[in-house]
Order: sequence, then structure tokens, then C-alpha cells
Amino acid sequence: MDYARFVQGLVKQRDAWPSQGVSLVLLVLDGLGDVRHPRFGYKTPLEVAQTPNLNDLAPRSALGRVMPVDYAVTPGSGPAHLGLFGYDPRDIEIGRGVLEALGLDMDVEGGDICVRANFCTMKGNVVVDRRAGRPEDKVSAEKVKLLQKAIPQIQDVKVTLKAGKSHRFAAVFHGPGLAEGVADTDPHEDGKPLHEPKATRPEAQKSARIIAEFQKRANEALAAHAPLNAILVRGVAEQPRLPGMEERYRLRSAAIATYPMYRGLAKLAGMKVLVTGESVDDEFATYSKTRGQYDFHFIHVKGTDMAGEDGNFDQKVTVIEEVDKALPGLLAQKPDVLAITGDHSTPCCMKLHSWHPVPLLLHSDRCEAGGQLRFTEETCARGTLGTFLSMYLMPMMLANAELIDKFGA
Amino acid sequence: MDYARFVQGLVKQRDAWPSQGVSLVLLVLDGLGDVRHPRFGYKTPLEVAQTPNLNDLAPRSALGRVMPVDYAVTPGSGPAHLGLFGYDPRDIEIGRGVLEALGLDMDVEGGDICVRANFCTMKGNVVVDRRAGRPEDKVSAEKVKLLQKAIPQIQDVKVTLKAGKSHRFAAVFHGPGLAEGVADTDPHEDGKPLHEPKATRPEAQKSARIIAEFQKRANEALAAHAPLNAILVRGVAEQPRLPGMEERYRLRSAAIATYPMYRGLAKLAGMKVLVTGESVDDEFATYSKTRGQYDFHFIHVKGTDMAGEDGNFDQKVTVIEEVDKALPGLLAQKPDVLAITGDHSTPCCMKLHSWHPVPLLLHSDRCEAGGQLRFTEETCARGTLGTFLSMYLMPMMLANAELIDKFGA
Repeated sequence: MDYARFVQGLVKQRDAWPSQGVSLVLLVLDGLGDVRHPRFGYKTPLEVAQTPNLNDLAPRSALGRVMPVDYAVTPGSGPAHLGLFGYDPRDIEIGRGVLEALGLDMDVEGGDICVRANFCTMKGNVVVDRRAGRPEDKVSAEKVKLLQKAIPQIQDVKVTLKAGKSHRFAAVFHGPGLAEGVADTDPHEDGKPLHEPKATRPEAQKSARIIAEFQKRANEALAAHAPLNAILVRGVAEQPRLPGMEERYRLRSAAIATYPMYRGLAKLAGMKVLVTGESVDDEFATYSKTRGQYDFHFIHVKGTDMAGEDGNFDQKVTVIEEVDKALPGLLAQKPDVLAITGDHSTPCCMKLHSWHPVPLLLHSDRCEAGGQLRFTEETCARGTLGTFLSMYLMPMMLANAELIDKFGA
Repeated sequence: MDYARFVQGLVKQRDAWPSQGVSLVLLVLDGLGDVRHPRFGYKTPLEVAQTPNLNDLAPRSALGRVMPVDYAVTPGSGPAHLGLFGYDPRDIEIGRGVLEALGLDMDVEGGDICVRANFCTMKGNVVVDRRAGRPEDKVSAEKVKLLQKAIPQIQDVKVTLKAGKSHRFAAVFHGPGLAEGVADTDPHEDGKPLHEPKATRPEAQKSARIIAEFQKRANEALAAHAPLNAILVRGVAEQPRLPGMEERYRLRSAAIATYPMYRGLAKLAGMKVLVTGESVDDEFATYSKTRGQYDFHFIHVKGTDMAGEDGNFDQKVTVIEEVDKALPGLLAQKPDVLAITGDHSTPCCMKLHSWHPVPLLLHSDRCEAGGQLRFTEETCARGTLGTFLSMYLMPMMLANAELIDKFGA
């Protein structure tokens, strides 16, 4: 039983949707979940934060917990968000090159090939410094511009480059017949020659030729620019072709996120990325402005995860309080379904992503309101929704908007 | 998605483990779980027992329940322990012969064939008493010695025998090309001749020949020893070849158990069986002595199950209190992760193993402490860990020691 396909077949035709339209909002506080630890007085940030607006919403909402991937598994940001977007993250691999390109806000389509690249220094045929002396951002940005001009296209494949931090940049190859399965040209240690970008499977023959040509032309273009006189390529990855929100759920969907990685993941799921400001207030204002144009908004708040990774308990509390303070602006738009959760837990005591299930608040006119007085890890653990895999959340939100047909008569 | 294989691929390489090493302890109180019953004042032994040390640990621990096999399924000791050891017990069959051999503390390796055997009395070619008049243990032990001497080997197969209770003994066949699928020679009623040990599948041809030869030579050796003048063989079973703790989790693992069956099950999972004393204190002392040599200790306490099977509520309380009293000795060793649970429930009101989920306490520096004041069936049913299949517990323990890599970036 393929759950996703099963549910997809039950989503109501749009002409059976409410005539006034619907608004589903998935508010993701990245790394929200935490655990009680003696160092922080056996309280979690959600328990310590002053959250009058969440407190008001909690008793009228259904609480529960989502588990991003499976028991005991700690997810990266990619799998964690794909789970929230309704995919089974165990079935989808997102390579390093794709994540790098998404993180640099590059446009990537299903079937494109993405790579991470370094500027490096070569002497003769040997790589003497894999990081080209760690150049300043603006130095390597100039060289990326030079490369982009020199190599706009290879055969029928469009080449797009973007500078990253220091010696790093990313490349996206767009054209027919591309596939992942190409070895790195990066020798992974200094003092060695570049490797051949060999195809590791037959489907990747063309990609291997394109990468080889890219490597060759880049080194030619940079020959006179020591110490940035060559490049090396690694993490060659194919953007998976995923069915989008509209295909699966008939939802016209939009993403509001301040960090490129999450905008990229949303694009992967077929969402339109909206322009927004830096603060939570700005993000909620963007929702308010566009509520009528989309059926589904994904809103991403990064601060909770950053505070968790820093082990900064107080900062995590502050971000939660900031969201709480901004919440009335969002609620004023009366979304039909509002889910507030995280993509994974980032406990302050661990300074890492973790496997712990993530608190979930699901509010709608039809939710199983449990009467809990607060929204915390502990009230969610005892909530009416129980604990379930993240991939079930999207269908739950649709159901709460009465967008899923009865199964059988 | 094969969960076990998925997690196996995520276990960190040992060079990424904490340099000071880790200590994971799985403390199994056999048959721990119970149910409230009017006959016992609607209290369970865990609720009645005085457990100051568990009470102290509970609020700082994550509580939940493990379900040994699946909903509504009552497990035998074999599947119940395999679940706790991280296997899916539905995929593994352990035949009667293997359990008999393990229960007699015999060495059994993957691929060996084990059988249960009886001494019996024959007249002509007819079995007149399948139990040879139920001889005393020491009488049949002598005959086993005689048989072992007469039949040390059959072709390239080593034969090892061990006496059981009364007319029962077990045999282990070790050599190449053996497989289960051999019919019993036991006619299963008196007054019938022995059956042929026919192969029921092609892979078992050699095993069938070995069993036939064993049956023939045993009867020859015993011919003058009536009423123990023949044997019959049943429950021919192959020891499954299971990947061990080290292969799956990179854990150097040891077992501390006073009953042979559990030592045998631990060996099946690739654990080193440690010499220990009879009391819980002795078992915990064995842990303390060997903490630094192993990453994982399985400690088995049998008394709770025996009391449950006897319907002896007070005795079950006593065993729980004995464990509680000994607990500080174990905690003094500061295991990184401690799980206290049972392999299954054995409710006193049923005097049987049951399908009820089993209370679980999981303590670590990164656990989802729930603040519950006691460790009982009821607090566990409302615990932060929820109720899940036993096979998820090992990965949860590894995760709590940060031994599982992040999935995706």
C-alpha cells in the first residue's frame, strides 16, 4: 500500500472545494523540538517561553507529535522538510550538489545535474592546494563571473554558476539526457592529479562527458589566474523529479522562507517562492497579502534551529516568543487549517539535530481539540493526535479542510 | 523499506564514537508487564512494589511501552528477546530443537541442526513407551554419556549430546551442508514403529541421512539397556544465521543471564556470555566489572516471569523490589544509556505470557524526560516515548548515545 498514492486518489476535485477557497498554513519553526535537561532546569524552551497567543490557541487545537523519518533516525533539513511536504523521505535521495545549489538560491529543475565545485591551485597536472589559498568571497565571485561568460553552454546543456563562500561555487547543468552517477574530479587530497569524471552507471555517460568538458574548459579559462587557476568538481547529483503539491493535492502552493535552502526544498515540492522580509512579522505579512492567491502556504522560521545548534536556550525562547507575538497577525487572516510544528528537534543540550519527535499543533474548525493549556513537548506527547510520521501531516491538513473524499460508500 | 537495514547503514563508524567509549545497558525483567485485576485490588506488581530508586529515576527518564511482536500477538521467549535485540521477530523462526539446545546451554552456531530427543522403550520394531518409563535424570544422563561416546561423529558432522529432564535430551549436529526440513522419527503415539526421518525439502537430504544414521547407531548402542533401549527424534531445527550486534550496530556486546535459554538467545545475537552469580546484585556486579570491555550489556532477570507464570503476585513484587534495591550499584557505573523493560508481559491473573505492551524506562542525557513520578504500566502508557515495537528499542538506545548518523543533509 503506497499511502501517498492512495491519498492522492482521494483528494477532491477542485470544483467540489468550498467556493470561497481555502487557506492551509504550515508554519515550521525549524528545529523546534527540545528535551528537558538538568543544565536548563529540566524545562524546554517551549515550556519556558511566554506564549500567550499559543496558550490561547492550544486548548482549541489538536496536539500531537510528528516523527520526521522513522524511529531513532535524525534527519537532515532535506529529508525533514520532504516529510512535512508529504513525501516519504526514505524513498528520496537529495545529493550534496543539489543541496548546495538550493542553498545558493539557484533555479533547479527535476532532471538537472548539480555539482559542488572548488577553485584550486594546480602546478603542472597536480593539485597543490584544493582550496586555492581560501580566497575572499569577492575574489572568487569575479572568477565565477569569468567562468560563466566563458562557458554559458556545453553542447545542448545550459550551464549556470553561482559563487558560494570563499573557494566554493556551484554549477547547475540543464539539458536533455542528464543523470547522476559521475565520479568526482576532486582527488580529495593535495599533491594528486585531478581524477577522471567517470560515469559510474550507463545512464550517466552524457553527464560524464559534459562534466569532463566543463572541467577542461574551466581550467583553460583560469590558466592565467593563479592561485585560482583550476577547479575541481564533486558531489555530482541529479535533482529528483518529484510530483508537486498541485499534482498530489491539487493545492496551489507558496513558500515564505528567509533562507535559500528552504526556498529550494519548497521549489522541489512545486511551490511558488514568495518575496518576503527578514522578520517573522514580515513573513506573516507576506502570507496576509497573498492569502487569496494560494490554497497552501509553507512559512519557515529559521531562528529556533540556529539557537538550538548554538546551544543557546535563551535565544530559542526569544525566537518562540517572537513567533507568538506575531501570531495574531496570521490568525487575523483566519486560515482554515493551521499547523505549527518543526521539521525536526534540535535540543539545546545536544547542539544538533535529533531523532526526537516534534511538537505539533493542528488548528481547524474540525480538529480534535484536546483542551491542553499549553503547547509544549509534554502536552503534545499526551495530545489527541498521538505521534505519527511527518508524511501524514499534509493529508491531515487536507482532511481538516474537508478536501479528502470518503473512501468507499 | 527495510528498517533494520536502513538503520544499520546509519550507525556511525567506530572512529567517530566518543573516545571515552560508551556503555549501553538493556535490563530485561522477564515478563515484567502486568495488568490490573480485581483479584489483586486493581493494582499491578509495579504499582504495589516499593521502588525508591526507580521512583527517583522515572521523572528524569523517558517512559513508554514496547510491543514485542505486533498487535495482539503473545510471544514466546525467543521472539520476545529477538525483538529487544533489534530483529523483527516475525522474520526469524527458531525451531523447538534450537530452543531446547539453547535451554541446555549447548553451543550452537548458525547452520547447525538441533533436535529434541527422547529415550524410549521398543519391543521389536514397535515403540511401547515413548518416555521409557520416565527415568530419573541421573539414569538418562548416564545413557547420554554412553551415546556420546558411541557416536562422536557421523561422516563429517560432529555430534554433541546433552541430557535434559527425565527421558529428554538434545543433540546438536555441526558440519557442512546441513539444513532443517527433516521429519520426526517419533511416531507421536505408543504402539507404532519409528518413522523414517524423511527430508521434506531437497536442501535437507544430507541432514536426513545424518539423522537416520544417528537414530540407527543410537538404537544399536542402547539395545541391551531396556527400558532405555532406543531413542526417538523430533523438532529437527536449524539454528538461524543472524547478523550479530557487532555487524549491525558495531557494538561489542555481552550478556549477563542466569538461565541458559537467555544466554543462548544472546549468543544467537552475537553477544559474549559472561560468567555471573545467581542474584541480581551478582549480575549488576558482573556489569560493573566488565563495563569498560563492552559497549552493550544485556542483563536478564528471570524472577518476574516465574512469579507471573505462578500467579504469585507477592513474589513478582518481591523480585521487582530486589531489582530496585540493587539498582544503585548499576547506576554508580553511569551507563550512557539504560533501558529497563521486559521481553513481554506475564500478568499474574493470567499465569501466562501475554500480548500486552511492556513498560519501558529509557534513561540517558538526551532522553525526553517526562517528569512521571513512578515507573508503572500506567505512567508508561502515557509516557513521552509512546508505544512502539520492541525492534525499535536498540536503535533508540544507539540514538540516545549519539551513535547514529544524520540521514541526509
